[in-house]
Amino acid sequence: MPVIDINSDLGESFGAWTMGDDAAMLDIVSSANVACGFHAGDPAGILRTLKAAGRRGVAIGAHVGYRDLAGFGRRNMDPSSEELVGDVIYQIGALKGLAAAAGTTVTYVKPHGALYNTIAHDQRQASDVITAIRSVDPGLVLMALAGSPLIAQARAAGLTVVAEAFADRAYTADGQLVSRREKGSVLHDPQEIAQRIVRMVKDGVIRSIDGSDVAIDAQSVCVHGDSPDAVAIARHLRAGLEEAGLSVQPFSGKAEAR
Amino acid sequence: MPVIDINSDLGESFGAWTMGDDAAMLDIVSSANVACGFHAGDPAGILRTLKAAGRRGVAIGAHVGYRDLAGFGRRNMDPSSEELVGDVIYQIGALKGLAAAAGTTVTYVKPHGALYNTIAHDQRQASDVITAIRSVDPGLVLMALAGSPLIAQARAAGLTVVAEAFADRAYTADGQLVSRREKGSVLHDPQEIAQRIVRMVKDGVIRSIDGSDVAIDAQSVCVHGDSPDAVAIARHLRAGLEEAGLSVQPFSGKAEAR
Amino acid sequence: MPVIDINSDLGESFGAWTMGDDAAMLDIVSSANVACGFHAGDPAGILRTLKAAGRRGVAIGAHVGYRDLAGFGRRNMDPSSEELVGDVIYQIGALKGLAAAAGTTVTYVKPHGALYNTIAHDQRQASDVITAIRSVDPGLVLMALAGSPLIAQARAAGLTVVAEAFADRAYTADGQLVSRREKGSVLHDPQEIAQRIVRMVKDGVIRSIDGSDVAIDAQSVCVHGDSPDAVAIARHLRAGLEEAGLSVQPFSGKAEAR
Amino acid sequence: MPVIDINSDLGESFGAWTMGDDAAMLDIVSSANVACGFHAGDPAGILRTLKAAGRRGVAIGAHVGYRDLAGFGRRNMDPSSEELVGDVIYQIGALKGLAAAAGTTVTYVKPHGALYNTIAHDQRQASDVITAIRSVDPGLVLMALAGSPLIAQARAAGLTVVAEAFADRAYTADGQLVSRREKGSVLHDPQEIAQRIVRMVKDGVIRSIDGSDVAIDAQSVCVHGDSPDAVAIARHLRAGLEEAGLSVQPFSGKAEAR
Repeated sequence: MPVIDINSDLGESFGAWTMGDDAAMLDIVSSANVACGFHAGDPAGILRTLKAAGRRGVAIGAHVGYRDLAGFGRRNMDPSSEELVGDVIYQIGALKGLAAAAGTTVTYVKPHGALYNTIAHDQRQASDVITAIRSVDPGLVLMALAGSPLIAQARAAGLTVVAEAFADRAYTADGQLVSRREKGSVLHDPQEIAQRIVRMVKDGVIRSIDGSDVAIDAQSVCVHGDSPDAVAIARHLRAGLEEAGLSVQPFSGKAEAR
Repeated sequence: MPVIDINSDLGESFGAWTMGDDAAMLDIVSSANVACGFHAGDPAGILRTLKAAGRRGVAIGAHVGYRDLAGFGRRNMDPSSEELVGDVIYQIGALKGLAAAAGTTVTYVKPHGALYNTIAHDQRQASDVITAIRSVDPGLVLMALAGSPLIAQARAAGLTVVAEAFADRAYTADGQLVSRREKGSVLHDPQEIAQRIVRMVKDGVIRSIDGSDVAIDAQSVCVHGDSPDAVAIARHLRAGLEEAGLSVQPFSGKAEAR
Repeated sequence: MPVIDINSDLGESFGAWTMGDDAAMLDIVSSANVACGFHAGDPAGILRTLKAAGRRGVAIGAHVGYRDLAGFGRRNMDPSSEELVGDVIYQIGALKGLAAAAGTTVTYVKPHGALYNTIAHDQRQASDVITAIRSVDPGLVLMALAGSPLIAQARAAGLTVVAEAFADRAYTADGQLVSRREKGSVLHDPQEIAQRIVRMVKDGVIRSIDGSDVAIDAQSVCVHGDSPDAVAIARHLRAGLEEAGLSVQPFSGKAEAR
Repeated sequence: MPVIDINSDLGESFGAWTMGDDAAMLDIVSSANVACGFHAGDPAGILRTLKAAGRRGVAIGAHVGYRDLAGFGRRNMDPSSEELVGDVIYQIGALKGLAAAAGTTVTYVKPHGALYNTIAHDQRQASDVITAIRSVDPGLVLMALAGSPLIAQARAAGLTVVAEAFADRAYTADGQLVSRREKGSVLHDPQEIAQRIVRMVKDGVIRSIDGSDVAIDAQSVCVHGDSPDAVAIARHLRAGLEEAGLSVQPFSGKAEAR
């Protein structure tokens, strides 16, 4: 039976401010990208999320980001290599500590927001993130954007990489995400979203925005949980995958290694 | 040959701001209390300090503090237990991550500033720090103020504890630190400081402020490094200990366990 | 026609995190205590709230707090006088700048959270807040807890003070708030809350928790807006006051001066 | 008698960390670019610097920066226009409040670090800074890099602009700063630096890196104060200007207006 991982960003509350519905999402996803305090997440809240994830057998990823609480890690920054390496190690270490306290384990790293987008193509910052992961724990898997040059770069550096697709995003004919600035870039129909991802898992292709089929090689699918609509889409996706006979479970780092 | 540990607060620079002379102090101390980012310390700077400490065989302690960069962790705060437990785990985890990247290991925890002073007597916050240490890594040693109730509390909870004396501070006849607000509370003569600590290590006593001898049971001595004078005092202390035939080396957690 | 002011805490979102329903509350209150960035509030969000308040003629207060985003300013801290004076001036100045840009004016200061509670009785920190207000703009009114010693202290220092009551809180027979830890300290019935405040405005008394009437001398009433229930209570209160022939409008600083 | 303004970055300490020698520099400069808390500067320290500047009649500028304490405002960021406008207003307002408490006045704005470099050429962020200044106080002068397109943009928007030269930097033949990455970009000889600036003030030209004279139209000269060498260079520059019969005093915003 083919398997697929569903991941989502969790642990993004901060102190008195809440974001998303972690409890609802943890019943849907198989992997949780947990905030590490730099773009979101206070330690007590992160710990609660990790305990809840651990109880459900959800895999834990370090959702590392730029040091930018006010911008939620969504603003481009140009830290030096020394700064970026240090910041990523620090965040991974902090999450590993909290995970140990929660009785669970960090198995992968998924950069967040502007850092995610930047390292998909910026070799220098990508190299810093790779260096950081390798220096703190080379067994950690990197989750990266399907179709991005980062995947080859990280594998060449010795990391295991898992590629992810985005459930609610349109793709170009050459397998890239359609820019959010363009019409039709974000999908809203839960039925359509589920069908697209079922097809991607079964056949390895997605219908692109211009109607052609494009191959997408992804072992994980990212869903959002920051609104009631987003939770409903995620729930529908999981149900659709299971109805299609697919098994939703955490990716196996080993299987994806070259 | 009797042994004694010398510890100091290091890694307390932050971004463009420097504090102390870590390189000089790492040639003097056997244990480094390294800032973890909440009261001081940026990840890149912490990493540099950890690498330099590792090269010299200096032991590493997590110098955890309140989340208060503007106050350098010196202001009293009353975090909830959930917050304090989370904050301490987070900082320990972060330092463990950076230490792994530096090829060294965190072996103990020494709370900083207001947190240090508070948990010397406040059972609730002390309990939170103990809980945090035990939940992230019960093998970590707690460094605590000699003569404080914290020592018994932490040992009862199952932690190994190392007691420390302060090289440049006067003691009362019952073994407590003379308050900084009182005259004569801080010593400045390097010769006198070295002689006092040599005596403490050899005989287990210090001359108190009222002239009587008081027993101080400490396996480590804390020195400061935030000024040229402080570095000179620390250097003099180390020389004095060695001239007296004492060996300066990291405390052995095992030896102090009850 | 007797008048009464209704105030509420607004502008407490931060970056990607939202808190409360500022738009709804600005249709109810006559005074807005606007966060100044230390416990909550990012500049862009504060500016939006100030513009919306200005359009409705709602008075603006600087809701100054401890520098503690992670604790939302609800944790006790002990800044030095120099630090607290500086922090309060800074926040007032920042809000005055944003208010100028929004075409409105800051007319009063209401400390937030732990700072509010502390200065109700702690003379040193109260003195620091008073010093800060007087040094940046002595024409600013201080909003303080009805029945607290702060009122006399601030008036003696030359500030105009407005006393406030809490709409949803029970009072003791001597005019103090019943501690939140005690049963019955918080009221939930919108009808009862409105009737109590109407009586306070008309007759100057509130029924205390032990059944006796207690005099409460308040020119403003504080309501919450951080939940749908809270907004409903606030809306009911305003309607109740207007049905009773009372006019809801910003307090007049001049009228309350001794 | 020709006049020239000397400006320097001050108030850049933060809590327990000090930077530069504000007292020494305030005896040299006629204008102080005072940190506003986002890249550096805590309110109590800023207030001390403002009082010291006020006593000496030194003019005060708001040294606004990106919200990036860890990077000292030196890292490029891409805040949205709404964020940047809000952040700049907030910082100017905060400094105006502290200046009022110090008995002095903010007369100009000089962006810091990465923000300074970015708006020298990035029209969008420049426009945001201009909007912020105009909305909080259109009488504030903008201090900008001599030769940058920002000058015309800001004047077209209605701001008064003062152009500044850098005392210790080499210039290209077309009046631009030689990149710090290139050899010879930074000058170190106090004598040479003073002579260059005397010539610029008297004749309006500087010898460029390739030997030709280039016209530099600047009413202020920026000096550094973050090292003993830097202070010595600044002191030498002031002495050199005075010996040449030039008067060092704050620029007059009126004189530079179009």
